[in-house]
Amino acid sequence: MIHVFQPDKYYLSIGSHSPALEINSGDTVTTTTVDAGGFDKNGVSVSERGNPQTGPIYVKGASPGDVLAVRFNKIWPNRDHGFCRPKIAANVLEPGHEAGVDDLDTFNFILDFESATAKIENPSNALKNLSVPIRPMIGCFGVAPDRGQTISTATSGPYGGNMDYRGFKTGVTAYLPVFVEGALFHIGDGHAWQSDGEILGTGIEISMDVSFTLTVIPKVEILWPRGQDQNFIFTAGNMRPLDQALQHCNSEMLRWLTEDYEMLLPDANILMGTYVEYDVGNVFDPAYTMICKIPKSVLPVAKQGSLLSQSL
Amino acid sequence: MIHVFQPDKYYLSIGSHSPALEINSGDTVTTTTVDAGGFDKNGVSVSERGNPQTGPIYVKGASPGDVLAVRFNKIWPNRDHGFCRPKIAANVLEPGHEAGVDDLDTFNFILDFESATAKIENPSNALKNLSVPIRPMIGCFGVAPDRGQTISTATSGPYGGNMDYRGFKTGVTAYLPVFVEGALFHIGDGHAWQSDGEILGTGIEISMDVSFTLTVIPKVEILWPRGQDQNFIFTAGNMRPLDQALQHCNSEMLRWLTEDYEMLLPDANILMGTYVEYDVGNVFDPAYTMICKIPKSVLPVAKQGSLLSQSL
Amino acid sequence: MIHVFQPDKYYLSIGSHSPALEINSGDTVTTTTVDAGGFDKNGVSVSERGNPQTGPIYVKGASPGDVLAVRFNKIWPNRDHGFCRPKIAANVLEPGHEAGVDDLDTFNFILDFESATAKIENPSNALKNLSVPIRPMIGCFGVAPDRGQTISTATSGPYGGNMDYRGFKTGVTAYLPVFVEGALFHIGDGHAWQSDGEILGTGIEISMDVSFTLTVIPKVEILWPRGQDQNFIFTAGNMRPLDQALQHCNSEMLRWLTEDYEMLLPDANILMGTYVEYDVGNVFDPAYTMICKIPKSVLPVAKQGSLLSQSL
Amino acid sequence: MIHVFQPDKYYLSIGSHSPALEINSGDTVTTTTVDAGGFDKNGVSVSERGNPQTGPIYVKGASPGDVLAVRFNKIWPNRDHGFCRPKIAANVLEPGHEAGVDDLDTFNFILDFESATAKIENPSNALKNLSVPIRPMIGCFGVAPDRGQTISTATSGPYGGNMDYRGFKTGVTAYLPVFVEGALFHIGDGHAWQSDGEILGTGIEISMDVSFTLTVIPKVEILWPRGQDQNFIFTAGNMRPLDQALQHCNSEMLRWLTEDYEMLLPDANILMGTYVEYDVGNVFDPAYTMICKIPKSVLPVAKQGSLLSQSL
Repeated sequence: MIHVFQPDKYYLSIGSHSPALEINSGDTVTTTTVDAGGFDKNGVSVSERGNPQTGPIYVKGASPGDVLAVRFNKIWPNRDHGFCRPKIAANVLEPGHEAGVDDLDTFNFILDFESATAKIENPSNALKNLSVPIRPMIGCFGVAPDRGQTISTATSGPYGGNMDYRGFKTGVTAYLPVFVEGALFHIGDGHAWQSDGEILGTGIEISMDVSFTLTVIPKVEILWPRGQDQNFIFTAGNMRPLDQALQHCNSEMLRWLTEDYEMLLPDANILMGTYVEYDVGNVFDPAYTMICKIPKSVLPVAKQGSLLSQSL
Repeated sequence: MIHVFQPDKYYLSIGSHSPALEINSGDTVTTTTVDAGGFDKNGVSVSERGNPQTGPIYVKGASPGDVLAVRFNKIWPNRDHGFCRPKIAANVLEPGHEAGVDDLDTFNFILDFESATAKIENPSNALKNLSVPIRPMIGCFGVAPDRGQTISTATSGPYGGNMDYRGFKTGVTAYLPVFVEGALFHIGDGHAWQSDGEILGTGIEISMDVSFTLTVIPKVEILWPRGQDQNFIFTAGNMRPLDQALQHCNSEMLRWLTEDYEMLLPDANILMGTYVEYDVGNVFDPAYTMICKIPKSVLPVAKQGSLLSQSL
Repeated sequence: MIHVFQPDKYYLSIGSHSPALEINSGDTVTTTTVDAGGFDKNGVSVSERGNPQTGPIYVKGASPGDVLAVRFNKIWPNRDHGFCRPKIAANVLEPGHEAGVDDLDTFNFILDFESATAKIENPSNALKNLSVPIRPMIGCFGVAPDRGQTISTATSGPYGGNMDYRGFKTGVTAYLPVFVEGALFHIGDGHAWQSDGEILGTGIEISMDVSFTLTVIPKVEILWPRGQDQNFIFTAGNMRPLDQALQHCNSEMLRWLTEDYEMLLPDANILMGTYVEYDVGNVFDPAYTMICKIPKSVLPVAKQGSLLSQSL
Repeated sequence: MIHVFQPDKYYLSIGSHSPALEINSGDTVTTTTVDAGGFDKNGVSVSERGNPQTGPIYVKGASPGDVLAVRFNKIWPNRDHGFCRPKIAANVLEPGHEAGVDDLDTFNFILDFESATAKIENPSNALKNLSVPIRPMIGCFGVAPDRGQTISTATSGPYGGNMDYRGFKTGVTAYLPVFVEGALFHIGDGHAWQSDGEILGTGIEISMDVSFTLTVIPKVEILWPRGQDQNFIFTAGNMRPLDQALQHCNSEMLRWLTEDYEMLLPDANILMGTYVEYDVGNVFDPAYTMICKIPKSVLPVAKQGSLLSQSL
């Protein structure tokens, strides 16, 4: 079933807020998200700034100990301009290295849907020929955390949140651990484009039309967000420092290989050590995000009931 | 001029050792490297283990404050088998996460040059169909460090060293700061294949035939290794934690953009924030390596005398 | 005014829960806390485990942008035994270093109030003469965080929380930034004794009789918890890694010196660089705690309206 | 035997330099060190800047696998003024936090030996009454590292080096692993006073009269520097980040307790978890230093042949 949902309230935190919509496992939701500053497709301010979230969506049957699969069917800008911060974050430069940019205003990118590119508005001379492909992604999504927590959309954790990873895009399925009845799915903070690391603290921040399918996978334990695209399975570690984020995504991948794929640990060590690839999610937010990927082409068959034995 | 050089001595450190060969700037050296364990192309042990280095090579005219450009013309295995450690390093897994592999012996990959692939020797059932492309790279190379230091080939720093980055391969030019007269170039530790991070502590360790051209670029100050391949310019930060390695490669890239490309800082911030990509070099050695990349396609023209104004 | 408050509900998170008590600024509260496992002074389980908090207490007049001063008048065990985890946390040992202790049961310390010491119950031979002084402290206290967040008592942040610093004890005043109307003060997780770092993950966990005075200091901006005891002023940075916790407590101290003490930055640099002392709070929790201290004896006079111009 | 040694050459690195003096195990050396800038007791520049080292001293009978015990009999300034950097290091402040001090000249402290205090020369008004006790320590000392390395005196490692810990002072014995025949002991970089962390990048930098006794303890394996003073045994971890320095000093202490004191691991866990104290050595140098301490009063008797069974 497809639910067309028009949000009228947004949250700056992910937690056990009152459900805005209730659906069955396997249902699809078509809705919209506002940009990180709270502006909608008409450029109207409809929320305070800070990655406002659409939702939460209650998925019947989801219980603690289950996994919520989130299939992103569509993530696409619903307006033709997005904003960007102009300054590289001090925390990713050498201590004392002056980026040389005062706290300038944000600047805009203008999207041209015909050519599928975005260009800087009023560029300086040096930047006047630059453009990027429109490559939409969703910066922040997640489920209500454990222990009754309600956590700012500035950060991320085992429940998802503001991971700002350019790999969360149309065609990808994300997997999140369920901590509360109904899972309570939130989504927001779309980017028309983002490079690795989100080192400006933004991508091209924009409002989106989104469509996603939420499916409960019962009784599978995962500790950190996972995902798959056409070519890879991947795990996300969300923590500072980057070294610890790396530890979490690696350990989560090793658990995945040994549990869902029933590999022996020595084999899983060799497979992962031989084929692993890393993407840097964000290195701007309070928790950094590191992504660990394994090509699907080298995986054994997943066991019955596992994440990837589902036809998503 | 091409020097065909047959090493008869190897070093387990990078420093101001007696030159093994003296060349002019712009000369090419064709030589061999032994594997990380000190075994040559015939499988004969010719050095102690620990990334033995061929060299050092004295380049006439190189002085402190210059840059040494290293063009890798050829890096190719000179035998058909390489070894690999079977265990993911504890430092990249969650504290207390048992990788479940005791200190097993290393295992071998057998290279098939016709198909350009490598396969595990005596694989377990689960791994019996696995193969990787032969994609040779050089794990460790560098010049004598500053302050008269002599530093173990286990680690890396501003002078290069054991960066274990799969991007140092045929066709790539690396740039290193010169700290002593003659630069004193060292090279060793070839891998027939390596995934991101070198999380096993090895790639497929193998002896190599190598050919490289060493050119002095006078009076250009760089603080960390840089490089270019066909599509990208890149910088390397070598340090623990990964967060600090990231800071160094980012700051080095910002310096590159503002100095060689004469970009204004606000423009350099936007260019880099929009287009940056990261590769994880190694997360195994005493210093980790993070790589910051910018596509050449978005760069302005480099000024005269800069690294990339050279025809290499 | 003194409020004698008997809690009948405990929270495993710090947030905007319904106030359990409402008081005026300057009032004193005499109440109890249960131990980290939820056991009260009679050894009866009255809450789930996980640093259950007494409160929250609404302080009339406290508004965002104010500071809440918490004067600990008394923190003293209200029973004669506490428990302890027996294993050093894997995250503070070298990766792969086996602490050699399986997940043993907790063990008890028995308190002797006459000698003011605590001894291990059923010690092994090697430990049979060990005792520690009873030196009670409070592991976790804080105010409701910003952005409507509700955060687990496992961790800490700018709002306080599970800092597990042995310096929060009788006679000390802590200062917390107020984020919501009424501040909403929580307190729990008493330790009869704790060494630096809380590397076992516990001190001697025990229930407490506590008395504290809550005073609103209007219109003073602080970014991280601060405090004073008889000899020192101090600041707390709560974050991973320890390096970042250190950055926060240092910057907070520099802000304190330049704002409340109206020192010029060059003078504040020298004063702090000459006299600073550090304590390691905890290195076990999701956020580590580092403490930056300056002796009161070297401080100038604080300006009117500042934290220390108050007679507490 | 006491050797009165007058250095005429200084090294800016620690390594296998030619011995300046050869002694027997158990001999005492009375000599001098110059300040970090290379100035001697007469204020004359006798070396380049950068923690110049007196030595190295060859100790007969010291072999790889032994320990060198260094008993500091005397560390005392041999002139009445020392210099100090005026700016807190950017790496210990929040990213982007402006310390507000440009690269000012160093300033001096003037020592008054009668009152045993040091005062700032030409203080600003705010600092005009400040003084510190004269509390001399040695910032940098060590033995030649393994693998033939020669390492800058800016940093530190398992071999000792620039630890900048205020606990290395008169009356203390330090223990260093021996990596080469003769150990090759270096010493320099005295401070008349230093606070925790060396966050200015200096203490009060001064030249010193030093006397120390070097004793070989055969066949004891240690991985990191250790020490003892009147009240504590301690270990030093030298690495970035601070979290890893902490891991090394903790693991080294656990090894010490289980090996020299023959404690069972469960007992050692409890002893250490109950009594550990930490000092922050330096958080300025390329490697940070964290110190792990255990009070001697709670230690069992050390076994024969162990570090502390020696009468030093």
